[in-house]
Amino acid sequence: MKVGDKHYHTIWMEGRVVYMIDQNLLPFEFHIKRCENYESTCEAIRRMTVRGAGAIGAAAGFAMAQALAGSTNPDIAREHIRATRPTARDLFYAVDRVYEAGKVSVQNALDEAQNLAIANVEAAKKIGTYGETMIKDEARILTHCNAGWLGFVDYGSALSPIYTARRNGKKLHVYADETRPRSQGARLTAWELANEGVDHTIVPDNAGAFLMSKGMIDLVITGADRIAANGDVANKIGTYEKAILAKHFGIPFFVAAPLSTFDHNTADGSAIEIEHRSQDEVHYQTGPDENGQMHTIRVTNPGSEALNPAFDVTPAALITGFITENGVIN
Amino acid sequence: MKVGDKHYHTIWMEGRVVYMIDQNLLPFEFHIKRCENYESTCEAIRRMTVRGAGAIGAAAGFAMAQALAGSTNPDIAREHIRATRPTARDLFYAVDRVYEAGKVSVQNALDEAQNLAIANVEAAKKIGTYGETMIKDEARILTHCNAGWLGFVDYGSALSPIYTARRNGKKLHVYADETRPRSQGARLTAWELANEGVDHTIVPDNAGAFLMSKGMIDLVITGADRIAANGDVANKIGTYEKAILAKHFGIPFFVAAPLSTFDHNTADGSAIEIEHRSQDEVHYQTGPDENGQMHTIRVTNPGSEALNPAFDVTPAALITGFITENGVIN
Repeated sequence: MKVGDKHYHTIWMEGRVVYMIDQNLLPFEFHIKRCENYESTCEAIRRMTVRGAGAIGAAAGFAMAQALAGSTNPDIAREHIRATRPTARDLFYAVDRVYEAGKVSVQNALDEAQNLAIANVEAAKKIGTYGETMIKDEARILTHCNAGWLGFVDYGSALSPIYTARRNGKKLHVYADETRPRSQGARLTAWELANEGVDHTIVPDNAGAFLMSKGMIDLVITGADRIAANGDVANKIGTYEKAILAKHFGIPFFVAAPLSTFDHNTADGSAIEIEHRSQDEVHYQTGPDENGQMHTIRVTNPGSEALNPAFDVTPAALITGFITENGVIN
Repeated sequence: MKVGDKHYHTIWMEGRVVYMIDQNLLPFEFHIKRCENYESTCEAIRRMTVRGAGAIGAAAGFAMAQALAGSTNPDIAREHIRATRPTARDLFYAVDRVYEAGKVSVQNALDEAQNLAIANVEAAKKIGTYGETMIKDEARILTHCNAGWLGFVDYGSALSPIYTARRNGKKLHVYADETRPRSQGARLTAWELANEGVDHTIVPDNAGAFLMSKGMIDLVITGADRIAANGDVANKIGTYEKAILAKHFGIPFFVAAPLSTFDHNTADGSAIEIEHRSQDEVHYQTGPDENGQMHTIRVTNPGSEALNPAFDVTPAALITGFITENGVIN
C-alpha cells in the first residue's frame, strides 16, 4: 500500500531479518524497525510495534522461522511466541504451520513463513474483491480500530473492500472510530485512508449512536482477531457495542477476515481468552506538541485505577455476514 | 463537597463577583477562577471553565445578575448569555428567571440568582435521597460524563445518590466512562469519587458492552442537559449508546435531573439543538508529563478531520426512570 508515493508492506522478512513499520510511532513518524532474531520479533508483537490480526500472524510465522534458523529449541520458541498475545487466532495458526514445516528443514520453515505472508496478501486482496460488492456508490461506512493494511501484510480486511471500491471509482465516506484507549482508528486508520485518498472523518467512540440515529451510516465493517466455530467474533474492545447499535438501527454489520482467523477448535466466544493490557494505556497518551516534540501525558485522574480489556466478543447473531477470501458468508 | 478536607461549592457569587472551580485545569490543578463581570462569566461558560447542566444554570443566573448590576442592556445581555451554549435547559431557565427578577430591581436579580443556586443545591441533595433507594448494597454502577457536584453547585445529579448511599454505609463500585473527547469521566468524575472515597474504576467508553455482558454492571445512572416533554433526554455524547446497551442487556438505566432540566416547551428530542464543538477537542489532549509539566499534544492523524457533536438524544423508551427532587418518575 501507499506511503507517500512508495509501495510498502506492513512487515516482511529478508533472509533471516524481519522488517516492520513501527506502528507505535505512526502517524507522527514513519520508521522501519529491524528485528534480527526471534526474541526481538516477539518483543515487537508484545509491544504492538506490529499489531492487527493478520500482521501479528505474519510476524509470528517469521519469528518461528527465525527461532529455527537461530537453532533455538523449537518447542521453547513456540511457547514463547504463543505467549506474546493471547487472542489473535492468526498468531497460533502461523506459529503451528511454521513449526511443522521446520521438522523438514530450516529452509522449509523460512519458505513456509514467506508463503504465509504471501497468502495473507492474497487473502486480503480477495476480501477486497468480494467485500466491494457490499458497498454501494456514495456509501457512508463506519469502521472500528484498524483492520487496514497496517493490520495485515497488505490491503487489510475491513478496509480492503473500501480500497477496492475506491479504485473502482465509487465515492465513499469512512467514519473512523477513534478506538480508545490505543486510538488505532484516529492514528492508524485515518493515516491509511489519508495516504489512499479516501474521504474520512475521525469520530469519538461515543458518537456511534448519534451517527446511526441521524441516518449517516449505511454499513459497518470491522475486522476480527478470532472467530469461533459458532460465528462469535473476538475483536477490538468496542466492536460489540457497535454491533448492538447496528442491530438496533437496522444497519448491516459485516466482519471481514481471512479463513486463518476462523478457529474451529473454539466452540463459541466464551472460550476465547481476552487479553487485558496495562491500565497505563488508558491513563497516558503520547503525541507531538505544536513544535513536533513528543510527550507522554496523563489524561486521567492521578491515583484512579482503570480497566483495559483489549477485546470483546460479539455474538454471531449480531453479525450480518463474514467477508472472506472465498466469498461473503451470510 | 470535599476537596481534601475542605468543603467547596462548584460556583458561587460574593457581591457581584462570581467564583468557580476551573474545571479545565482539573484534576491536575485546583484553581478558583474569579469573574468580575458578566462577559467574563459568559466566557467561562463557553470555554467550559464551568460545565455541567446545573452548574451552567447557576453560572448563567449569576451572569445575568452581573449584567444587570453592571447596567448592561438586559436584552442584549440575555441574548449574549443564551448564545454561550445551546443545549442545557438549566441555562435558559436561570437566565429568564433572573431577567424577570431584574425588572423589579438589581438587588432583586442578585437575590434571585443566589436563590437559584441554593435551589440547585437543595434539588441535588433531594435527588440523592430519592435516588439512593434505587441503589442496593454492593451495587456496581456505570456512569457517563460528569453529573457530579462539579456539574452542579453541590452534590450533583447522577452522583448524588451514590454519595448518599456511601454515607448511609452501602458498599458501591462506580465504573466511570472516560467520556471522550473531553474525558469528563476520567478527569472529573474520577477526581470527585476519589475525593469522596468512593471505590471506582475508569473504563474506556468502548468497554460498556464488555462490562454489561460479563454481568459487572447492576445499574446505569447519568445526568441530563435537557429533557423534552415526551421524556427524550439530551445528554453528553455517548449516553444514547449506553442506553441502547442497557436495554439490550436488561440493565436499569436512570436519568437524574432537577425539574429545571425538564423543558415542557420542547415536544420531543428532535427539537433539541445539539451543540457541535471544535474538532480540536478530538485532535488534542492536554495533561502533565511525568515531571508535572503541562503539554497539549496531537492524538489523531494530522490533517484528518474530526466530528465533535457534544450531545446526543436518548429516546424516552430506553429510560427506566427519572430521579428528581420530587421523587423517582418511572
